[in-house]
Amino acid sequence: MDLPILADSVRLADDGVHILDRRVFPARREWVRCATVEEVATAIEDMVTQSSGPYFAALWAMVLAAREAEHEPEPLAYLERAGERLIATRRTNNHLRKAVHAVLSTVDENDLVGSALAGARAGDERYRSRSRALGAFTADLLPANSSVLTHCWADLYLVELVAAARRAGKTLAFHCTETRPYLQGARLTAETLAELGVETTLITDGTGAAVLAAGRVDTLVTAADRVTMDGHVVNKIGTLGLAVAAHAYDVPFLAMVQAPDRLAPTAADVPIEYRAGAEVLTAAGVVHPGIRGHYPAFDVTPPRFVTTVVTDRGAFDPHALAGYYEEEP
Amino acid sequence: MDLPILADSVRLADDGVHILDRRVFPARREWVRCATVEEVATAIEDMVTQSSGPYFAALWAMVLAAREAEHEPEPLAYLERAGERLIATRRTNNHLRKAVHAVLSTVDENDLVGSALAGARAGDERYRSRSRALGAFTADLLPANSSVLTHCWADLYLVELVAAARRAGKTLAFHCTETRPYLQGARLTAETLAELGVETTLITDGTGAAVLAAGRVDTLVTAADRVTMDGHVVNKIGTLGLAVAAHAYDVPFLAMVQAPDRLAPTAADVPIEYRAGAEVLTAAGVVHPGIRGHYPAFDVTPPRFVTTVVTDRGAFDPHALAGYYEEEP
Repeated sequence: MDLPILADSVRLADDGVHILDRRVFPARREWVRCATVEEVATAIEDMVTQSSGPYFAALWAMVLAAREAEHEPEPLAYLERAGERLIATRRTNNHLRKAVHAVLSTVDENDLVGSALAGARAGDERYRSRSRALGAFTADLLPANSSVLTHCWADLYLVELVAAARRAGKTLAFHCTETRPYLQGARLTAETLAELGVETTLITDGTGAAVLAAGRVDTLVTAADRVTMDGHVVNKIGTLGLAVAAHAYDVPFLAMVQAPDRLAPTAADVPIEYRAGAEVLTAAGVVHPGIRGHYPAFDVTPPRFVTTVVTDRGAFDPHALAGYYEEEP
Repeated sequence: MDLPILADSVRLADDGVHILDRRVFPARREWVRCATVEEVATAIEDMVTQSSGPYFAALWAMVLAAREAEHEPEPLAYLERAGERLIATRRTNNHLRKAVHAVLSTVDENDLVGSALAGARAGDERYRSRSRALGAFTADLLPANSSVLTHCWADLYLVELVAAARRAGKTLAFHCTETRPYLQGARLTAETLAELGVETTLITDGTGAAVLAAGRVDTLVTAADRVTMDGHVVNKIGTLGLAVAAHAYDVPFLAMVQAPDRLAPTAADVPIEYRAGAEVLTAAGVVHPGIRGHYPAFDVTPPRFVTTVVTDRGAFDPHALAGYYEEEP
């Protein structure tokens, strides 16, 4: 299976980091070149890329930072500040911290750029291999001919889920919500599934419950930006409503995440990112000055509405996530 | 309280029926002139107007039909065919049948146009006075300072709810879903509430569950296109998901309808209108030929997720709707 373009959409080059602009994809395949760490940070804030995109962007941005740091009096301090800048771009997602850590933990003052590059490459490969494991564990839980409802864009997890299902001889079909206001479901998920030759149906965000009630899908599968240790799934706004409806109609909800977050024991430990309400108004073409927008970028699904949390170490009951770390030394 | 423009958006004139084009409102305030019954029917099919709009359009179209019928050999048969044409434009909604009946039941061959006009005017006034009663009964059920979540566009019921709440000294604030793919919530509901000076917040369709879970609203209120005698609420796609979420978070769901539908004993008696999937694709800017759209225009909320059905004769438990007709002779 060839990689779809979104699975290789952040690239390091001599002249900077090139990021496929997900805001206009697939209508246009445009790349934003970021020559500096600051430009990468701004691109992340401006939603040029999202989902796993910021993780890869931060990895390669740290290599840019190493290049910049060579001319600084205190290169390591410079790198740390660059990492802080990148981590601050988006608050809910945990990936940025991991990407920065992947580079900072391997960087060597004697070979600043080379060691940063090695750290970033290892971080890249680690993310991909963990996604591969996660996709395989998720495919194991689906019936042989499965009709899946998904929301937003599960990125590499989705690509690896499709690949693993194929290896296992399973046929998947998907219903994708369009996922307003950025329409990642329509533009990224549906496009990528179609690119992979998967049967793909697009629905509006409000249609999910009807699709679940009608038995058109047998499983709800989404990625999670974070899963707290007590089983709360933090993901794109709209996930909660689908999970509640899936629960009401006895459809299992599988939340895919590489690992539950030990830094977030409970949902209260996850700050929810509120984006400007104007983003909702603009997208809807609303102009009346008396209308304001409300746009939490994520919602929190409590464990009672989650069937299984699938990780790169297998499937866990949302109430027993501590098990993920039991095998660690 | 002045009537908002959407409460007077279908008008009879000498040169035909003028219908405010809700597809472009509020960005543009354009009227579509329909010179014939057939043009009105096409306008309804093309979604120039919706919600109660088709009811008023059908009333006035029957007056056009009466004008046309004067030149026909069999005027009453002509009127009946015109009525059938209008009823066939949209399948789920019950209003069209009532509008056609309002005129056909009063029409007199000796004064075709005059009697049709009288029937249409009576139908117009009956709809408005019933909406007034419905708005008042709904306002009675809300707390003094109520934060309401609504979906799609409840039309005159909403306008009368706001008016009745004001008369009762209650202050309402609304969260409106944008209601894809036509965005009636953003374009009609939010605009009209703002026009009425009501505090109005717009959210994406996927945000409803989060707003319910967070306690930002105390009541879910929607109109219903139909309510079956066994308590199923048929309304714009997306209502079901909000109702399930409201139920999960103990928020009451009030469904507003003039009357439960005796012609629909159960949900199986209501044909759901499936509109072209391409409408979802186009709105989302999707172009990949491998992606198809799925667009049921309505969903069905079972009575277990409905708290109260509010009618023009008061509030009823969804399991006891037969009570609505008990006071009839």
